[in-house]
Amino acid sequence: MLIIFGAISVTLAQSKDEKIKADVRKVMDEQVAAWNKGDIDGFMKGYWNSPQMTFVSGDSVTKGWQPTLERYKKSYDSLAKMGVLSFTDLEITVTSKDSAVVLGRFTLVREKDKPTGLFTLNFRKFKDGWKIIIDHTS
Amino acid sequence: MLIIFGAISVTLAQSKDEKIKADVRKVMDEQVAAWNKGDIDGFMKGYWNSPQMTFVSGDSVTKGWQPTLERYKKSYDSLAKMGVLSFTDLEITVTSKDSAVVLGRFTLVREKDKPTGLFTLNFRKFKDGWKIIIDHTS
Repeated sequence: MLIIFGAISVTLAQSKDEKIKADVRKVMDEQVAAWNKGDIDGFMKGYWNSPQMTFVSGDSVTKGWQPTLERYKKSYDSLAKMGVLSFTDLEITVTSKDSAVVLGRFTLVREKDKPTGLFTLNFRKFKDGWKIIIDHTS
Repeated sequence: MLIIFGAISVTLAQSKDEKIKADVRKVMDEQVAAWNKGDIDGFMKGYWNSPQMTFVSGDSVTKGWQPTLERYKKSYDSLAKMGVLSFTDLEITVTSKDSAVVLGRFTLVREKDKPTGLFTLNFRKFKDGWKIIIDHTS
């Protein structure tokens, strides 16, 4: 009986993790869809709207949702610069019932170049859903 | 009474977070001490000894504790190359009772240069203590 209860418990835990992974993946899919419509405000819905939200890019740290939004709008001020975004090679690690970390690669296909890089995204679950609290892109 | 219980509960949660932050900080202090004695094996004790441990540096991913150890030993094959390591600007976010993420900066002071960069470290608590499961350095 203990073995059966153990197996049920493991199966339940796996299924909870799979639900979290699907929820996180959905946020990222919505970000990609928003980006590819030229909608940076929509893209930013995936980030925690807080002055504590942290965006690390290479050797610079941007603190806060609003400065991160402004940074994106400045760097990508045309559809040509935004290009077509995709996220690939995603590995989602669930660290608790309300936290997860995603390793992946972004690629922008643009007319003249194809910038790409790795990211680790720390997600937390809030009342209004899963949001990125720390983005580290390199 | 509810207010008092609420206040006690918040204080307990804060004190648990402070304990986690101190434990994580201790692992990092031990890593710095080991590095500065030229002891890469000691430094590696801070990492989860698993093929799933992930080390992201710039645009490359190294998978597994053993390949990460070998990468460090190859890149830092002399005390001169190892230099004097310090971790600064640490911000520790506790995401659950057994997970945390650290944002910070590393600096190596060497005779001829001073390489520096940002990192995010995802820590998990295991039976043998807090260990890095994902290191992203840029």
